[in-house]
Amino acid sequence: MEKKRNVSMAVIRRLPKYHRYLQELMKNDVDRISSKELSEKIGFTASQIRQDLNCFGDFGQQGYGYNVKDLYNEISLILGLGNEYNTVIIGAGNIGQAIANYSNFDKLGFKLNAIFDVNPKLIGLKIRDVEILDIDNLDQFLKNNKIDLGVICVTRTNAQSICDILIKNEVKGIWNFAPVDLHAPEDVKVENVHLSESLLTLTYLLNGRR
Amino acid sequence: MEKKRNVSMAVIRRLPKYHRYLQELMKNDVDRISSKELSEKIGFTASQIRQDLNCFGDFGQQGYGYNVKDLYNEISLILGLGNEYNTVIIGAGNIGQAIANYSNFDKLGFKLNAIFDVNPKLIGLKIRDVEILDIDNLDQFLKNNKIDLGVICVTRTNAQSICDILIKNEVKGIWNFAPVDLHAPEDVKVENVHLSESLLTLTYLLNGRR
Repeated sequence: MEKKRNVSMAVIRRLPKYHRYLQELMKNDVDRISSKELSEKIGFTASQIRQDLNCFGDFGQQGYGYNVKDLYNEISLILGLGNEYNTVIIGAGNIGQAIANYSNFDKLGFKLNAIFDVNPKLIGLKIRDVEILDIDNLDQFLKNNKIDLGVICVTRTNAQSICDILIKNEVKGIWNFAPVDLHAPEDVKVENVHLSESLLTLTYLLNGRR
Repeated sequence: MEKKRNVSMAVIRRLPKYHRYLQELMKNDVDRISSKELSEKIGFTASQIRQDLNCFGDFGQQGYGYNVKDLYNEISLILGLGNEYNTVIIGAGNIGQAIANYSNFDKLGFKLNAIFDVNPKLIGLKIRDVEILDIDNLDQFLKNNKIDLGVICVTRTNAQSICDILIKNEVKGIWNFAPVDLHAPEDVKVENVHLSESLLTLTYLLNGRR
């Protein structure tokens, strides 16, 4: 079904939202939904919804709408869910610990293999049965274990050197919480969560300058 | 200087990034920079940089470029920095605690006034000298204290009711970490950090479907 053609990042960023709303509909035992009804819930126009979903296949049916469960399953597949992602977290500070503790990520297929930190007080402790290891062992750990995803929760100044170790060891996905733009080759996918930038967007809006 | 005209969200979302790069340049004692040099660092085109900054004033000078410190100060003002934002966090779970512990937000002007939770085991504890209060007292607390920003770190199912209490008590900024789209009137600004959606964007890209 899937067309796999060049899809814009804007469309891609909307997919998880479709996924979330469809999950909600399934919970509420809704079997089918028109693009118009979906539009009222999700806040995109019906035409945008049809366009977005058409990037990946012909999911809707004129006069019927979308089968909620089928569409949910298709979008799950498109998003790469159903796979297992071996994951390490680097940096066991506030954010690193929060991510490690977030059990929802397990359900999405993320298996936390190890956590790394420099702080001797943290090394050896466990978060949800996963040990915090010495960051000096990261390189060797990655050589011994096939890891898909690295979550960078270290300081700004250390983030690129950690990123380089991940890249050298063939980690292809990086979820970056450090307030810095990382340099990575094309085949390594970096997704940033820049919390301060999100917060500053809010202060801008609060100051009524829009 | 500031033009305060209708500026697109895309431009607004780039402002904190300019702010971050200019701060970096100041740390490295760079006094002035051309849009071309800034472009090489920040990754936007020189023309985009000029366009973005022109939305707010005439900051650059032909043949000279931008004065780094002046531009930094102007952007800080535009972003609403230098003000104090009285803040409450609702939900003292993983993310709530991480945000409460993040001292960088102090520096940006966010004063944490209180944290709220339902869990009796957490109520009465302190995070960086700020007490965790019973969520049942949120409404009264907001009546007694002028709060600018509410950080919602509760579960999906409770987020809207918390949001409603904040709105009723004139809180104008909401930083939402719950995986749900909140309903709020026009004059209340909601900024979402949807971590699962960020992660699913990454799994999509990892699966090479772009």
